[in-house]
Order: sequence, then C-alpha cells, then structure tokens
Amino acid sequence: MYYHDKKLQYPVRVDKPNPMFAKMLQQAIGGVEGELRVMLQYFFQAWGNRSPEKKYRDMLLETATEEIGHVEMLATAVALNLENAPTAEQDAAASRSPMVNAIMGGMDPRQYLSAGLAALASDANGVPFNGSHVYASGNLAADMYANIAAEATGRALATRLYNITDDPGMKDMLSFNIARDTMHQQQWAAVLEELKEQGGIFPIPNSFDQSLENQQYSYLFAATDKDPSTPIPQGRWTHGPSLDGKGEFRAEQMKPAGEEPQLAPPPPEAYAQTQQMGEEHKGLFEKVKKKIT
Amino acid sequence: MYYHDKKLQYPVRVDKPNPMFAKMLQQAIGGVEGELRVMLQYFFQAWGNRSPEKKYRDMLLETATEEIGHVEMLATAVALNLENAPTAEQDAAASRSPMVNAIMGGMDPRQYLSAGLAALASDANGVPFNGSHVYASGNLAADMYANIAAEATGRALATRLYNITDDPGMKDMLSFNIARDTMHQQQWAAVLEELKEQGGIFPIPNSFDQSLENQQYSYLFAATDKDPSTPIPQGRWTHGPSLDGKGEFRAEQMKPAGEEPQLAPPPPEAYAQTQQMGEEHKGLFEKVKKKIT
Amino acid sequence: MYYHDKKLQYPVRVDKPNPMFAKMLQQAIGGVEGELRVMLQYFFQAWGNRSPEKKYRDMLLETATEEIGHVEMLATAVALNLENAPTAEQDAAASRSPMVNAIMGGMDPRQYLSAGLAALASDANGVPFNGSHVYASGNLAADMYANIAAEATGRALATRLYNITDDPGMKDMLSFNIARDTMHQQQWAAVLEELKEQGGIFPIPNSFDQSLENQQYSYLFAATDKDPSTPIPQGRWTHGPSLDGKGEFRAEQMKPAGEEPQLAPPPPEAYAQTQQMGEEHKGLFEKVKKKIT
Amino acid sequence: MYYHDKKLQYPVRVDKPNPMFAKMLQQAIGGVEGELRVMLQYFFQAWGNRSPEKKYRDMLLETATEEIGHVEMLATAVALNLENAPTAEQDAAASRSPMVNAIMGGMDPRQYLSAGLAALASDANGVPFNGSHVYASGNLAADMYANIAAEATGRALATRLYNITDDPGMKDMLSFNIARDTMHQQQWAAVLEELKEQGGIFPIPNSFDQSLENQQYSYLFAATDKDPSTPIPQGRWTHGPSLDGKGEFRAEQMKPAGEEPQLAPPPPEAYAQTQQMGEEHKGLFEKVKKKIT
Amino acid sequence: MYYHDKKLQYPVRVDKPNPMFAKMLQQAIGGVEGELRVMLQYFFQAWGNRSPEKKYRDMLLETATEEIGHVEMLATAVALNLENAPTAEQDAAASRSPMVNAIMGGMDPRQYLSAGLAALASDANGVPFNGSHVYASGNLAADMYANIAAEATGRALATRLYNITDDPGMKDMLSFNIARDTMHQQQWAAVLEELKEQGGIFPIPNSFDQSLENQQYSYLFAATDKDPSTPIPQGRWTHGPSLDGKGEFRAEQMKPAGEEPQLAPPPPEAYAQTQQMGEEHKGLFEKVKKKIT
Amino acid sequence: MYYHDKKLQYPVRVDKPNPMFAKMLQQAIGGVEGELRVMLQYFFQAWGNRSPEKKYRDMLLETATEEIGHVEMLATAVALNLENAPTAEQDAAASRSPMVNAIMGGMDPRQYLSAGLAALASDANGVPFNGSHVYASGNLAADMYANIAAEATGRALATRLYNITDDPGMKDMLSFNIARDTMHQQQWAAVLEELKEQGGIFPIPNSFDQSLENQQYSYLFAATDKDPSTPIPQGRWTHGPSLDGKGEFRAEQMKPAGEEPQLAPPPPEAYAQTQQMGEEHKGLFEKVKKKIT
Repeated sequence: MYYHDKKLQYPVRVDKPNPMFAKMLQQAIGGVEGELRVMLQYFFQAWGNRSPEKKYRDMLLETATEEIGHVEMLATAVALNLENAPTAEQDAAASRSPMVNAIMGGMDPRQYLSAGLAALASDANGVPFNGSHVYASGNLAADMYANIAAEATGRALATRLYNITDDPGMKDMLSFNIARDTMHQQQWAAVLEELKEQGGIFPIPNSFDQSLENQQYSYLFAATDKDPSTPIPQGRWTHGPSLDGKGEFRAEQMKPAGEEPQLAPPPPEAYAQTQQMGEEHKGLFEKVKKKIT
Repeated sequence: MYYHDKKLQYPVRVDKPNPMFAKMLQQAIGGVEGELRVMLQYFFQAWGNRSPEKKYRDMLLETATEEIGHVEMLATAVALNLENAPTAEQDAAASRSPMVNAIMGGMDPRQYLSAGLAALASDANGVPFNGSHVYASGNLAADMYANIAAEATGRALATRLYNITDDPGMKDMLSFNIARDTMHQQQWAAVLEELKEQGGIFPIPNSFDQSLENQQYSYLFAATDKDPSTPIPQGRWTHGPSLDGKGEFRAEQMKPAGEEPQLAPPPPEAYAQTQQMGEEHKGLFEKVKKKIT
Repeated sequence: MYYHDKKLQYPVRVDKPNPMFAKMLQQAIGGVEGELRVMLQYFFQAWGNRSPEKKYRDMLLETATEEIGHVEMLATAVALNLENAPTAEQDAAASRSPMVNAIMGGMDPRQYLSAGLAALASDANGVPFNGSHVYASGNLAADMYANIAAEATGRALATRLYNITDDPGMKDMLSFNIARDTMHQQQWAAVLEELKEQGGIFPIPNSFDQSLENQQYSYLFAATDKDPSTPIPQGRWTHGPSLDGKGEFRAEQMKPAGEEPQLAPPPPEAYAQTQQMGEEHKGLFEKVKKKIT
Repeated sequence: MYYHDKKLQYPVRVDKPNPMFAKMLQQAIGGVEGELRVMLQYFFQAWGNRSPEKKYRDMLLETATEEIGHVEMLATAVALNLENAPTAEQDAAASRSPMVNAIMGGMDPRQYLSAGLAALASDANGVPFNGSHVYASGNLAADMYANIAAEATGRALATRLYNITDDPGMKDMLSFNIARDTMHQQQWAAVLEELKEQGGIFPIPNSFDQSLENQQYSYLFAATDKDPSTPIPQGRWTHGPSLDGKGEFRAEQMKPAGEEPQLAPPPPEAYAQTQQMGEEHKGLFEKVKKKIT
Repeated sequence: MYYHDKKLQYPVRVDKPNPMFAKMLQQAIGGVEGELRVMLQYFFQAWGNRSPEKKYRDMLLETATEEIGHVEMLATAVALNLENAPTAEQDAAASRSPMVNAIMGGMDPRQYLSAGLAALASDANGVPFNGSHVYASGNLAADMYANIAAEATGRALATRLYNITDDPGMKDMLSFNIARDTMHQQQWAAVLEELKEQGGIFPIPNSFDQSLENQQYSYLFAATDKDPSTPIPQGRWTHGPSLDGKGEFRAEQMKPAGEEPQLAPPPPEAYAQTQQMGEEHKGLFEKVKKKIT
Repeated sequence: MYYHDKKLQYPVRVDKPNPMFAKMLQQAIGGVEGELRVMLQYFFQAWGNRSPEKKYRDMLLETATEEIGHVEMLATAVALNLENAPTAEQDAAASRSPMVNAIMGGMDPRQYLSAGLAALASDANGVPFNGSHVYASGNLAADMYANIAAEATGRALATRLYNITDDPGMKDMLSFNIARDTMHQQQWAAVLEELKEQGGIFPIPNSFDQSLENQQYSYLFAATDKDPSTPIPQGRWTHGPSLDGKGEFRAEQMKPAGEEPQLAPPPPEAYAQTQQMGEEHKGLFEKVKKKIT
C-alpha cells in the first residue's frame, strides 16, 4: 500500500507563467514518453513480477512510487504556468483579455475549458493517455529494454522541453527530471548487466528452446532492395559472430520461400457478392432459405 | 517506392483450421507487440532518419519492407484458420452449425461479422491498432532500444502462440517468425554496439550537455519505502561505477526537496464554486456582468 | 421512434464569424462534457431502463430527444463561425488569405481539411468522441449522479465558452444552453429526491446486502500521510453520523492489513527469462520439446 | 511525493484460481468504473485544486493515495487467478492443456500473450484504460458529483463481481472493496454537505451570474413527445419549487424558438461538388487558377 | 429540433433470450458498420450541408432521424436477449447459475458488469464507438459514396447476424433492418444519379481544376510487381476510356520519378545522438550552454 | 513479399519550409482520409480476398504497394517542412528562436517533442492513426464503395492542402497525389462496372436471398418530419423504378409499427436500486445471502 507527503520531491517554480508551455508539458504527463506511462509501467511490472528472486519486484516498486511524484511535479508546473501575473488578475474584466488571447493563441483549450486551468491526463495534442502503452510482458529482460526505451525517449522529450523554455524555474525542474531519467536508464541497464552475469540474455525470451526456431533464418540480414545488385548496407549486423555468441551474421537478398496464398472461395454465410463465389456456391442461398423456413 | 511479389516470404500452411487460434494470431498482427507496429515503426524511423551517415536509414528500409511480408503471412494464416474442413463445407446448411458454434464459442466475432472470415487490423481482443505505438524519436539510440523492446515482446508473443497451437503448419510458420525476431533483436543490438564504438551511448540523448542536468540526482537510486529502516534492494544499481562510466551509483531514502505547492485561487473566469474562491473574488462576477452588458 | 422539425430549438446567430471559436465549440459537441455524450447517455439509460415504474424511462426519453437538438444547434454554430464576412467572400482569390491565415493560426485544421468548413464529432483538440463515456449502469441512482456530473461539467464548459466570446449571437445561444444545463441538473437531482422519499439511496447500489461488506471499513476515513503525526484533514467525513444514517464516521491512519503478495514463479509456458524461473523449471523447456516432437 | 509499503492494504487470497474471473477483474482495474480511473481522478483533482481552503486538496491526496493500493490488490488478484492448481503445474507438458483450454475458453488472451499471466491496464474486454475518464473540472462541486458517480458505478461493479465468484478469498477481498466504495460515496457526499452549509451548490458552477442565463428556460421540463396530447411524465421535476430554491419547476411541450438554419454556400476552397455551389461560384476555380499561376 | 414516440419503428421480439447473440448485436449498434455511425454521419452531413439546393439537407435529416429509431430497436433487442427465461428467474439463487455461466461462457462481460444487463455504445468486442467514423466531408458526392459504403457493410453485417440466429423474433427484426439498408443504399445511389444528370461526378471533388493535377498520372494503372515481366492484371481499369470520359486508361510498370530523399542532419535542439550529427554540430551544445547561462 | 527502391515515386521538394504546413500534411498521412489508411485497407482487402477469380486480389496488391510510396513521400515532405532555412541554422542559439516560435505558434508540438522534427503516424490534430478505419468486409462491392469513398475524401483533402500552400514544390507533389486519387477513384469504379456486367451489384451483398428481407420496406423513403403535412423532399429516391431494377420507389410518412418496449424488471444480481425492483424482488437479496453463506 501507499503513503504520501504533501511536499514535492523537488521544487517546482514558475517565474513567468506561460500557457503555451503548459501545453508542451502535457507531453511529459500523458504522452507516450511521459510520466504516467512509466509510473504505471513500473507498477504493473512489479505487481505482476514472478520470480523466486524478490529484489527486482522490490526495486520496481521503489521507482514506480517515485514516478507518482514526477507526475505530481509536472501537474503542478502546468497549473502554475496557467496562472496570470498577480496584479493584472485583480480585475476580472481586465484579466479576461489575456485569457482569451491565450486560448485563441495556442494553449491547450481543454486546460481551461475542461479543467479550469489545470493539467489533464493527456498529451501535448490533447490526446488522452492510453493504457496500452503500459508494457509489462512477464519477461524481465523484455521489460528492461522497454524501460530503457521509455526513459530514453522520456529524456529526449525533457531535453527538448528544456530547450524551448526560458523560464529559470522550469529549467531547474527539468534539470532534475533529466537527471532522474539518466539514473533510470542506468538502473534498467544495470538489471540487464546482472542478468547477463547469470547467463545470456539473448534471444529474449531465453527460455524458449532455440532448436525449435528455424535457425536458417536466425542470424540472416534479409535485404529487400528491388535491385539485387544494390550493395547491402554493411555493419556489425552483416558479418562476424552474432552478439549473443550463438551464431554468425550473414546477409542475403531475400527471396520468397513460400507460394502465392490460395484462400478458399467465400462460403455462402460470408455474404460476399455472388460474383466472388465459386459456381457451386452461387445457388446455395436458395438451399439455405429452404432449410431455414 | 515499393514493389511486391505475390509469393509469401515463407510458407503458411494450416493443417487443421481453428477459429480460436485465428483470434490469437490477431495479437501478432495488430497488437502492441505485433507486426503492423514494427513495420510502421521501422518505416517512420527510416523516413525521418537524419544523419550524414546513410547506412542506418538504408538498413531500416530493408527491414521495414521485410515486415510487410510478415503482416501478410499472419493475415493469410488468419484467413486459413477461419476455413472449415473441406468436406463439411459443401452443404451450406450443415456448415452453418460449425460457424455458429465458433462464433458463439470464442472466436473474434468481427473476423466474421466485419471481415467475412478474414483478418482485421486489430489485436486479440479486437482493439484496433493504434499509431501512437509507432516510436520514431529522432534519436537513433532511443529508437534502437524501442526496437529491441518491440522484438523482445514480439518474440515472447510468438513463443506463446507457438505454445498454444498443435497445428504443424502453424508451428512451422511460427518457427520462422521466432527466428526473424531473434535476428532483429541482434540487428538493433548491433547498431548500439557500433554506436558504442563511436563514443558512449548513455545517457540518451548523449548530445545534451550533462552539466545542465542536476547531477546530484543523476546516479542516485531513490528508495521510497515508507519505513526508512527497510533495507534498500541491492544490486548493480546501488553501488559501483555507473554503466556509462560517468558517475558512481549510490542509494538513499528519498526525501522531499520541494515544498507543498501553493496554487493561486481560481480566477473568476474558471467558474469554480464560489466556496473555492478567495474573498476578493467572490463578488467579481457582478463586475464581469457590468462590463459585459 | 423519432421525428424532426427543420427549425432549431433556439436561435443560433453568429454576428462575427470566428474560426477559433468554432474550434472551442467542438468541446461542447464531442468533448467528455459535451452534448453528444449526454444525448447518448440519456438514450442508453432510457433504452436499458428496467423498472416496473415507467416514468423514469419516459422522462429520460423526453430529455435525450431534446439533446439531439442541442448538438444540432452547436454544429450549426460551428458552421456559421467558419463563414467569412459576406463581402470579402465574393472574390475567391481574396478570400483565400483569411482561410490560410485561420488554418495556420489556430483553428481546428480538420474543420476545413476533413469537413469542408463544418463541425466534427470531436472535441476542441480534435479527439473523436468516444462511446465509453456513455454511462448507463442499470442502477438509477448511479446514473442520476453521473447525469448531474455531466451537466455540472457541461455547464462549467458553457460558462467558460460564454466568457471567451464577445459575439452577441453566441452569447445569446449560450445563455440558453446554460439555462438548460441548470434545469437538467435540477431534474436529475429531483429524481434522487424522489428516490430518497421511497427509502434511502446510499450506499449505491442499495440492493446489495450491506452485511456482506466488511463493515469495519465502511465509514472509515483512511489517512495515508507518511507521517502518522500529520493531522488528518477534518471535515464532515471524519466524525458524526454518516450521511446515509447507517454508520458513524471515523478517521484513522491506514495500516496494511495484508501481507506482501507471493506470486508463483512463472510456468515454462510464460516464456519468462530463465533467470526468473525457479530451479525446478529451468530445464523444463527441454521436456516440453520432447513432448511436442 | 510518495512512499510504499510492500504489504497489501487488505489480504488478497485466491482459493481456486479462475482465469475467467481474472478477465472480469480487469473491469475493476482499467474499466471506466475501475480503480485506475478513480486513483488518477483524485490525484488530478488534488494537484489542480485551487482554493484558499486547503483541506479539500489534502483530503483528495489522502484518498488518491489509498486508491493506488486498490489497483495493487486487484492486479495481485488477477495474477493469482491465473495460477493453476499447485500440483498439476509441476509437469510442464501436462499443464499446457489447462492453459490452452483457458485461453481458448474465454480468458483474456492478452493476460497470457502480452503479460505472461498477469494484469493489464485494460478493462474486461481488453480495451485499454483511457485518460479522458479522469474528470478534474476545476469546480469542486462538479468534481464531487463525478466522484460519487464513479464510486456508485464502481460499487455496482464490485457487487456484480461479488455475485459471479464463488471463491471465498475473492469474496473476502471484494467485501473490503465494496466497503471502501461505501465510504468514498459518503466522503464526497459529505463535501457537498459542507459546501451546502456555506451557501448553495446549485446551479453548478454557482459563480456564474445566473441573470446572464436565459431564465425562461432554467426550470422548464421540456417535453418532446411527438403527440402534444401525450401526458408529460410527472414527478418532482415538473412542479413545485426547484431544488436550488431559485425557481419554480414547470413542464411544457417544447416548440422550436429558432428558424431553419441557413448556411452560406460552400466557398470555392472547400472543394464541394460544383452541383453544390451557387451559380456565382461555379466558374470561380478558373479564377483561382489564374491567380495562382 | 426533435421529437419521439415511445413506440418502436418496427416490432422487436426475442423468443429465446441468448446472451451471446446480445454480444453480436453490439456490432450493429456501436461497430464501424453500425447504426450509431450512420445516424451521426447523416446528421453531421445534414447539419453541415452547404448548398443553395436545400433538398439534400432535408433528405439527410429525414433519414438521420429514422436511424435513431434503429439504434433504439437494437438496444432493445440486446436488453431482451439478456433476460433469462421467466420461470427460472424467480429464485435468485438458482438464476445465479445461468448468469455466471453466460458471463463465463462468452457474453460481453460489460453488458452485465457495466450496464446491468443492457446495451453499450460499443461494438461486438466491447470497443467503444469512435466519432472519427462519422464522415461528413463537405463534398456531397464523396459523402454519398461513404454512405453507400456504410450501408453496404451494414447490410453485410445484418445478413451475417441473420445467419447466426435461430430466433424467429430476431430474424423478423433483421429482415426489416436488411430491407432498410437496401433502401438506403438505393437512396444514396439515387443522389449520385441526380448529380450525374447535372454534370459529371468524377473526379471527386469535381470543382478542382483538373488542369492543376499532373495529368500524366491521372488515368495510369501503376503496376508494382517486382518482376516487370509479370503480366499486369487486366480489367476495365487498364484500357479503354476512363469512366469519367476525361481520359484513356493505360497500364505501366511504375518506376521511381523521384530521387533518394536527403534530409538535413539533425539540428542540435533535436537532441539526436552525437553520432548522428554532422561534424559541425557535434560541439554545438557547448555553445548552447554558454548562451543560456 | 515486398521490395523497395530508395528513390521516391515522385519528387518531393520543399522550397520554403513551413512547420505549420508540416502539421497539415499529417492529415494526409494518419488521418481518416490519409494514405496509411488506404495502404492498409487495400492490403487487408487483398490478403483476405476470397474468390476463384484472382485478378482482383492481384490488382489490390499492385495498388496497396504503390500506396506505401505515398506515405513515404508525405513523411519526407513533413521532414523537409520542419527544416529551417540553411543559413540561420548554423548558429544553434540563433536557431532556437525560430524553433520556439514555431512550436509556440501552431505547429504540431509532437513533431518536435516526440519525433525530433519528423512525421508521426497521426492526423493533423495529433490523433494517432486507428486501425478500425481499415475496411475489408469480405464483400468486393462493399469494399469498392469504401475505396471510392476513401479516395474521394482523400482527393478532397489533397485539393484543400493544395489550396493552403504557396510552396511550388509542395504544389507539384500534391498535383501528383491528386492525379493518383483521380486514377484510384476510376479504378475502383471500373471494378464495379465489371461486376455490373456479370449481374447486378445491388443490393449489397447480392448473395442474400432478398425474399428473406421484409420487402414492404425495401424501396420506401421514410419521412420523419414531425408535421405530416410537410412536403417530403422529392428526388430520384421517391418515385420511379429503383436503381437496382428490383422495385419501385415510394415515399411515406413513417409510423411506428412496433409497440412501446417492455423490459423485465432488473433481476437481483443486476444490483439496481431497490426502488427499481418489482415487489417480488425487493426482499430477494436476503435469500441470496442465505444461499451464499
């Protein structure tokens, strides 16, 4: 179960409120690279963690809980960015103009219309957060890669937000978020490092008996350029031992090993057009009718 | 631009059609771990690739194009699994029973109702594919981690599908899909390996000047257990040099560095309840009214 | 079944077309607080209404039907706000500039690109209306609370729209919408009042035998502040008789009554990493293989 | 910021694992009536709370934090329901049959295929949780009604889940959830009670000057039956003083007060069909062309 | 504005309630081929109709209004299919079994859990109706084709539902729905017929000056088979006059007319990996830092 | 399977990059009228095509493959529109201003924040592409109408994009896209023409025995104006032979043929409010309780 402290994990200060920046911050709340996603992702990974070794579950819980505080910081930052300068606000009629201007000029209209000047569970385009981005596959290595990806795109997002604000308070807050993303990338990479020490990671999942896969294709770079004479793009992936040490990379122009697929004609109950049906089916709905009536 | 060959990349054979397995296969088509996602992900990464070095773009195009053929194989497998046994089908009225039974007994009803016995651009629960899962961040390392995550969860999915089918044809097809996922995991890992040789990868993005992040928090494992005396879960992430070689891991119980947030009272135009408004605002809508009329 | 009159329920007049306001109005059409939602919500509540007493079904039908006319008014208002001033429009080339300007300057691009200058079934950010917001729970009291919530957020939205327009025609239309929201709040509250007279409403559903719930927790305010010495926020909810007259409020710091959960290790068919599997499972996939082949 | 305790808020015990019930429980996790929604709803209401009076913010934080623990309990319950009986599981090959049976027989396939036998951030049909259900309007009274609605539909859901399980452990857990929903309904109702004591609640928002609404329609039940002689459904909403004490209910057959709307013909840049365009526009694209070239 | 009659447009009778069929019927309510979609589609087309000629708007309103009654019929059919046989229901405990059985055996769990045995605004997989399917393009011909497509897929759906039910009441209701879909297909085709008489329809939109399109490609069937010697699939589309009478069909193997795209290297503020940046950018973040501080 | 050529199908040139136009182009990528949709639609129609006649499948594959190249062109156009003028970019600090301005002034923030200045799989409002728009019904005629609708709305979109750009490179690219949409409309119409020659198309599906539909309603225009004396909008749809030659159009004011629906009272397990339950049910939960305990 969970507890809270009313204080924020790190100070959130907005020196010059900026409704347009409030819109950009939504990406870090409800976007696919945002904090709601990692918070829930780490929680679902922890809650569904199956392993005799408990420490990964414990560690995931520690960090998932931290992430709630990050959503809180960002939601606070949005609310503060939506506040007008103190003096101008005193007169309601006068303050109406900046509001209208902001609404008309690019802020997220729903931060005002739906939330009364506060954050939403949505991204920078107002698209609501979607739970399908919560990856918790039941495979620890797959999850760690998903987590690094989330923190890498998350840190890229935070640096881009850092770039477009001139507000010292916001830059300070983001310098913290960026640092935490640094740590969390390292943290998930460290788990992979530990797993590596206990045996290979790849191919993920490593518990599937690899002799059951068609190994002719396991380390083949398949080129699909129309012109077979186009040189295949060379790299670490085209020759030499594979990174899992279980094969040798090679590269070939792909050729179809299968045939043209042959689907059966539509059965009468698919209600295709009669022109699509084989001769033997064309009269069949008459029979159907007789059986039914 | 693009070309096709009517033949399949690998044979797709269904020995004993199974409408329930047709439903499961949808996850590999339109699920978050599925082929539509990786196909579009690699395409958008290629099309948006910015780098003086062209080979990564070229390589992404090669593999994105391959993935179209994987969606094609799976869609074919779905259609074949929805076909009834050849003899029973000859009589429409008799064949109605298996159809009704299948529909009622757990197949995806939309494969019949909406598609007339064919595949959908949806997952195993009938949830349509959603473009927000196409990750193309503009940062090559972040994208490679996202790609490994996609192929790791994708291979986990394929092994689970392999586990629940007894059909030799389907097992053969999946043994190919699993092998290609093995390769694609290796391929993206190989890119990371190359990048590593050209300088560090971490923290991603590595082009953000790390002195701008709040480095006090960059390598700190932050524990959030309510009871500070609970031992912090130890691992590679709690001590020793960080994996990027740029810091030293340490672990501490997290404490709030910020304060309780103080939001301004709602301005009149937020139309909060009067009970929420500061004394000075409570009479303000009277003024608003006068200004307007 | 249903009928229409080509006339609008209330006049819709736009004195000075404003494409940006056309975007804002979308929230009142397809937003979560909008008219499409209440229209469908009241219809589904009526169509699914089960009760020997017919009048609630009848009343819901009356108002659901009224709401269609509200969507119609708003869609008309959007279309009118997208029309340019009459004279400037006469010359196509000249009028192209305002269009381009409006498109580039903040209007909903899809009102032009997808709808040719008309309304969409979407919210102010262009997010399509989603049927999951149609609440019809089969419990009349729960539905009435959902309806008051819809009309309360709907009226807040309408007042905010009223605030950001200077157009007298739009203000007139909104003064009608706001009034209808006033009535509909009262109407659903009146149903609750009637139910209260026929016996208690709470807890909803009141047909579940309350002795089956764990009554130790039924009227307890559970505090979750990390520091047990932080004063619990006091209010009507911390002491005195509960509002349903069935208990006495009290407040306590919450403590876990459960244990740390213990999930079984992953079975082989979950294809976790081998590092996650218990010793007894690590070799199992070899056996699986033998059985299959 | 936030803390956790590894123990659960209340014991979660599954006596007889049931994969089909694991699917049903998803509705209480990621459904519109579920715990993810109320957890985030209370958090966003707290984080965006604007009011000189702090206690509502504080109280919302207390309860939002509690709700995390409810999601945790339910996710744990799902994972436990996906575990097979202890003895049968020892042999992997033998256990494959129950798995396949369950998959084929109605469980959520993604709990296995995507999550490796654990919970998802989705509802009972596998539809992902969607952030648009997080209501935080900036108006305290509107939010309290939304909260009661959420807890009323949530408690209805919990009682229905209670009804369909025979598992004593699950019944015990649900008896706790149902009790907490009882309390939370009371808690939000208690806030409304307090607000009422500080002045009226209705119409929500009560800070909009009601003289600006078209009061002719504020307390009118508008009947829409095609046949004006059909009796209007009578109730507390058709006569007597309105519940806010600010008007008198009355009921009338609705008649259109507006006219048939007249939209301007499509301008050339809307690219309607020429048949839709007024005579004066039909030749205009020729002019457009000349200007452009 | 709108009116209702409590009677249904056509009788809805369920002889033998079938919860699984109640799930299938959801596709005809909230599916992409369903009645909610056409109802809203015709309404938005009517409300946004721009044309000096009023009759199309009027006609769309007539039929949109009819469609409300179709949703009503289907929602009623769902509710009736969820009712158990009268006698077995008398004893609550006994009736619990059929409920549990149905829930566990394939019915839409949310029809019980969320709606208390009634219809939802969702499709047969429980995916909520989505407003993006409401096509109203502002071009009358485009809309008519969208409408025929909707009624064609809608009628295919209805015939498939007809096929899987044995219930005489349901067959009777569907025989009406199928007939109305027949008419509505004809109706939209008749509009196209009228437009054709007033001048050509194609290409849609016909108000765009066709000399502005690159006419070299306007009537060319572009073949994309990898092997240029594969015969191009011949048909009405490969030779002879085009159907709009404005060109001559021809068929050719497609060849790229463009070049390999060259994107600029990522600017520093994109925060790509340094390895992706041109030499001149690699040191730039140092400069950025200096400017900022 | 599939192949690629690194060259584009048609040149993509941006003379004056315009981030706001990059946002508009998203509609042609991920919008409902966009290229991702038609690409996938034609692929799923081909992959699921059932017919002894192969040429329709072959033709669909040809064109689906072409469409990949259209998405590629548009994604390239987006990336180029996001590039700043070459000289200004050399200095990072100076270039930050245009970026911030563009972000704040109306571009899609996610093209920068999420994609690092590249295209997304979303529409012009940032709403992700959704697979439910992929229509492949299993009925060839229904699909052809859906395809014409897609190409008609797609061409309308392209002409509107053509109208709002002044960039010669973009106009040139769009003149190609518009021409291809012309051809594809013709192509699908040509299929319908061929089907017509093999027998009628209507009503779709034409394989359902029309004597099973309620033919009393098959060719009836049903008027729903409240006032029966309002003239019914006359047109080709109100009189004369129907277009399928199978009936005679007529028009009538619609009247309910059904009755007011009568749903059974809620069973105890629906947990309605007791006030909704029939007398016989009100005490039932007591019995339920006894049975359970």
